[in-house]
Amino acid sequence: MNELLQKKIDLKTKPPGSLGKLETLALQIGGIQNTLEPELRDPTIVIFAADHGIASDGEVNPYPQEVTWQMVCNFLAGGAAINVFARQHGMAVKVVDAGVKHEFEAHPDLIDAKIDQGTKSYLHEPAMSEAQCLEAIERGGEVIRNLHAGGCNVVGFGEMGIGNTSSASLIMCAVMNLPIEDCVGSGTGLDSAGVQKKAEVLGRVIKKHQLTSDDPMKVLQTYGGFEIAMIYGALIQAADLKMLILNDGFIVTAALLVAAATNPKVLDYCVFSHASNEQGHQKMLSYLKADPLLNLGLRLGEGTGAAMAYPIVEGAVNFLNQMTSFEDAGVSQ
Amino acid sequence: MNELLQKKIDLKTKPPGSLGKLETLALQIGGIQNTLEPELRDPTIVIFAADHGIASDGEVNPYPQEVTWQMVCNFLAGGAAINVFARQHGMAVKVVDAGVKHEFEAHPDLIDAKIDQGTKSYLHEPAMSEAQCLEAIERGGEVIRNLHAGGCNVVGFGEMGIGNTSSASLIMCAVMNLPIEDCVGSGTGLDSAGVQKKAEVLGRVIKKHQLTSDDPMKVLQTYGGFEIAMIYGALIQAADLKMLILNDGFIVTAALLVAAATNPKVLDYCVFSHASNEQGHQKMLSYLKADPLLNLGLRLGEGTGAAMAYPIVEGAVNFLNQMTSFEDAGVSQ
Repeated sequence: MNELLQKKIDLKTKPPGSLGKLETLALQIGGIQNTLEPELRDPTIVIFAADHGIASDGEVNPYPQEVTWQMVCNFLAGGAAINVFARQHGMAVKVVDAGVKHEFEAHPDLIDAKIDQGTKSYLHEPAMSEAQCLEAIERGGEVIRNLHAGGCNVVGFGEMGIGNTSSASLIMCAVMNLPIEDCVGSGTGLDSAGVQKKAEVLGRVIKKHQLTSDDPMKVLQTYGGFEIAMIYGALIQAADLKMLILNDGFIVTAALLVAAATNPKVLDYCVFSHASNEQGHQKMLSYLKADPLLNLGLRLGEGTGAAMAYPIVEGAVNFLNQMTSFEDAGVSQ
Repeated sequence: MNELLQKKIDLKTKPPGSLGKLETLALQIGGIQNTLEPELRDPTIVIFAADHGIASDGEVNPYPQEVTWQMVCNFLAGGAAINVFARQHGMAVKVVDAGVKHEFEAHPDLIDAKIDQGTKSYLHEPAMSEAQCLEAIERGGEVIRNLHAGGCNVVGFGEMGIGNTSSASLIMCAVMNLPIEDCVGSGTGLDSAGVQKKAEVLGRVIKKHQLTSDDPMKVLQTYGGFEIAMIYGALIQAADLKMLILNDGFIVTAALLVAAATNPKVLDYCVFSHASNEQGHQKMLSYLKADPLLNLGLRLGEGTGAAMAYPIVEGAVNFLNQMTSFEDAGVSQ
């Protein structure tokens, strides 16, 4: 299929290779769908939200914990950045309550998959029990199976959870075997003293749990959060169903690090939408040998990078399906 | 206005600065339109097409000259890359015959501004006469005035012209005072021997005409082409009408180099859509202190970079107009 796709691309009315990364994307998507005429159906951003024990405990984030549920309400009301960008690009937005410390009223775009009212603080104990982690993974897979059954074949991953850059930093540190200082950034807006304090707190966590890259599932369970474990399960399931995965920023890529460690084939289904401004994200991308589409200095999460990159993905599919060939256009080659 | 715009941006439900380059764009566009609620109206890609004397003379390009008119027909039939991307993003496409060596039938999307059947070869004489250059500039301005009168306030610039990377390299060399080797790339697909040959041919042109950055209009007239002079006039007119300009790749940026040399304020109206794979383009962007939105390895021209960047520009305007504030969403700040 790859050869046939490359031939189709090279007969389009353009110099060979002149559409750059769009050509690579067209090859990838045609390969995943095993067709010369791939389609993107019901593109959906799924935002996994949860609370973190560390947020009320560790002085690692500038926003109060209640912002998690307030932002979930903002997503459901359609007023957040991700809603604006998804609407612009014809993408649906679904919000998964993976473990927010709040009881929500039912809403057609809210999926209740709550594991608990936030994780425990890994300053004292693992963020979740082994059973909770497995349940989160299973619920993440279920969300994706339902989407797929509804016709969706391209899913963008987003997240919300005050304190979750700390989880992502800890996972990165353990899976990539890096000093914690290399994995900590300003998150939603810490100053340099704040970043230093965060590294100091997380350094104590690392010392306490003594985890290594040999046991990525233990890393996921210990450092959490529920939304990250659920994203892990969702990524594995999406790849298994041959869906196109739009990776997002630091948090989603932390889940992907664990997924790549246990199921490396998941990477074949990923589009790396952007490099975020969180310093650790760029190191994660290099580690995964990923070539991000955008570099816009975003550091918001919610799936905003995935949504902003979607028109490029669409452009790749559209040029493959809609551009004329030299022969059909009567253009000399 | 800038302070009010910044305040509006900072009250949106997101950490300050977390939308990166989209925030810079929102500031720029609000500033240009002098409003807190900017609008993008009738976005249009204008492709300026012309032929070049050098193309039949200098062995500098791998495609035959007739590809210029054949591609114009492809644009008008809707089958080229730019048509696919413009359609995807709700942009109109207009094609300007600035001086193609072909007689076209009338078409609703074709604007006849033909100066001549291609330029002369600058191997022997200036590409155009002074009168032709001034006429091209005037016709470029007229195209933009008509678009603006129709309601358009955002224009993406594209071009088509076999041989026009050579014109762009020569203009770059003279305006930026660089050796020709720094300004020559593979264009539509020369191999390294071809690039060397091109640099050698253009080196002779440079020696013959002895132009410097002191006289940018003479540079434009001597190295052409008609489409580049017309783009120059169009850029100046668009800035004068306070339209948002979507800059494209190597050729359009060569016209912008001349425009910036004579009317530096034109840069305030420019969005730098992408860095192309043509090596000289990245040097031009650094010279103009431009921060391109995309880096997708495109090197096709036609305005494809401008079209691919348009959703990011739209995203900037949409978040400014549509996102809720912390107060309205009831989110703690």
